[in-house]
Amino acid sequence: MDVVVVVGNPKLGSRTRRAAEMVAERLTGAPPVAGVELAELGPALLGWGSPEVEAAKDTVKAADLVLFASPTFKATYSGLLKLFLDQFAAGELAAKPAVALMLGAGPQHALAGEHTLKPVLSEIGCSCPAPALYLLESAWESSPELETWLVRAAAAHGLPAPGRP
Amino acid sequence: MDVVVVVGNPKLGSRTRRAAEMVAERLTGAPPVAGVELAELGPALLGWGSPEVEAAKDTVKAADLVLFASPTFKATYSGLLKLFLDQFAAGELAAKPAVALMLGAGPQHALAGEHTLKPVLSEIGCSCPAPALYLLESAWESSPELETWLVRAAAAHGLPAPGRP
Amino acid sequence: MDVVVVVGNPKLGSRTRRAAEMVAERLTGAPPVAGVELAELGPALLGWGSPEVEAAKDTVKAADLVLFASPTFKATYSGLLKLFLDQFAAGELAAKPAVALMLGAGPQHALAGEHTLKPVLSEIGCSCPAPALYLLESAWESSPELETWLVRAAAAHGLPAPGRP
Amino acid sequence: MDVVVVVGNPKLGSRTRRAAEMVAERLTGAPPVAGVELAELGPALLGWGSPEVEAAKDTVKAADLVLFASPTFKATYSGLLKLFLDQFAAGELAAKPAVALMLGAGPQHALAGEHTLKPVLSEIGCSCPAPALYLLESAWESSPELETWLVRAAAAHGLPAPGRP
Repeated sequence: MDVVVVVGNPKLGSRTRRAAEMVAERLTGAPPVAGVELAELGPALLGWGSPEVEAAKDTVKAADLVLFASPTFKATYSGLLKLFLDQFAAGELAAKPAVALMLGAGPQHALAGEHTLKPVLSEIGCSCPAPALYLLESAWESSPELETWLVRAAAAHGLPAPGRP
Repeated sequence: MDVVVVVGNPKLGSRTRRAAEMVAERLTGAPPVAGVELAELGPALLGWGSPEVEAAKDTVKAADLVLFASPTFKATYSGLLKLFLDQFAAGELAAKPAVALMLGAGPQHALAGEHTLKPVLSEIGCSCPAPALYLLESAWESSPELETWLVRAAAAHGLPAPGRP
Repeated sequence: MDVVVVVGNPKLGSRTRRAAEMVAERLTGAPPVAGVELAELGPALLGWGSPEVEAAKDTVKAADLVLFASPTFKATYSGLLKLFLDQFAAGELAAKPAVALMLGAGPQHALAGEHTLKPVLSEIGCSCPAPALYLLESAWESSPELETWLVRAAAAHGLPAPGRP
Repeated sequence: MDVVVVVGNPKLGSRTRRAAEMVAERLTGAPPVAGVELAELGPALLGWGSPEVEAAKDTVKAADLVLFASPTFKATYSGLLKLFLDQFAAGELAAKPAVALMLGAGPQHALAGEHTLKPVLSEIGCSCPAPALYLLESAWESSPELETWLVRAAAAHGLPAPGRP
């Protein structure tokens, strides 16, 4: 299963990226085959049809599972991530299995993924059978919420139950 | 595949119910094995632990796929449906495949299922890989939106592409 | 200023009610002139046009400010509260100033009021200039979040800044 | 009353801008004192602390009322608008009266403003007492929805009822 992570943090090499890679590997048993760092695309995301952006879209389209990861800005996903999602047509990702992951400073924004990121992913065609995952920035590497989520997400995606790390 | 429909319309034998049965059959190729008319449960839904409510929950839990259907009241699902969903514990439906269906008087509430019903279904444990389906009350039997949705929902649920009616 | 609290907890005399009364008094400087305990209306809420329900609606309509309070069930407001809100027509409350209050067991549902309760109140015509307030059940009587919210809510409603309790 | 419009359309001189200016003038009786075209800020929005962005923020902060306008992309506001909103701290706009306006191609996304734009505006401190306004791109200049909204929005903002155009 080829997993691709899309990282919507304006800072390269962020905890968002490391968390996305960890979750992808814990969920599927293998590291992601590619990571799309939206911060590298920069101003190309402000227009339409850039070759670099098209290449990033192709990477996403070729995946078996896409993990979209964002820091929590203003109680929702980052503007940087939305710029990239805006590059897809409605339904373009045609039932592509996807996971919504958000990292936040405190627990009070835990519903952001379910209420804001998953509806946008659905609009561009993704299938998100698992709940959105919300991890505290200060505890993204291990938390009871993560373990509970992995069991349910594996079941929702038809994957074997993940082992302990 | 055993499909159960849950109908959150206060009126028995509503278009909501007929639409739910039609969608269930179009999506899976067979009529639902059971229909839970929440209007029949009535005041039992205002408390906790009624035997009739427990039986309805068991019907839901035994299904392979559950279609939750509601009329659109105040731009979201009905209070009657929420009374029933409140009877489940968080996560109780453990990755149960589910579909969110809403019927409304006009197109302007089309996002209600995605933004309001799917998050609640997710909270009680359902997997909703397909977009929420929104049908106009006046055109629930046939619409281009329905045909488009059936193709995508079948793919999302791992079902064969539905035939024409 | 006549404040009315509407309480969507199925249990009479709940913390939801006490918190609603406290918030109403802290925000406006006077206790509520009336409290609508939806649990007392019971099965009358399952139909349309009951005299008791109409009287409760009249109480709401006569208020200068309405505080709608709900426990958090399944990451959103209770089905009981929604039954009552369903009794209003779209826009019926014609720019009535209102506050959304939710009590929950943990901080992870803090966005529920903003994403789920305020949109429904808006649909029935309420003006909700302040953020939804979310209080932990275990700390509803005093919390830093409450004090911060009171300052902002008073400004949003054009009221004098509340004093300390 | 000094009104400022913030325009989140990547295209300069868009219908989004013209609609925002028209709504601002219809609601308050005077044209906006300033318009912030986010498309002019471009790559400065991808980082933090740019002088041009700070100047735009100051324009917003000096207003009596801010109208945030966006095209509907992927059933929600544009990534460009979110980049700008991300530049504000939580609560920074301290009870600033604001209006959420979205233009879309069809009626089916009419709930987007209420469910996605208003919660973000609330997070950065805005007071949005009126419903979000959603206008069809093809009918932004005149529609029954607009007239109905103007009456309610004026009441919600404590403004005189707007005259006919």
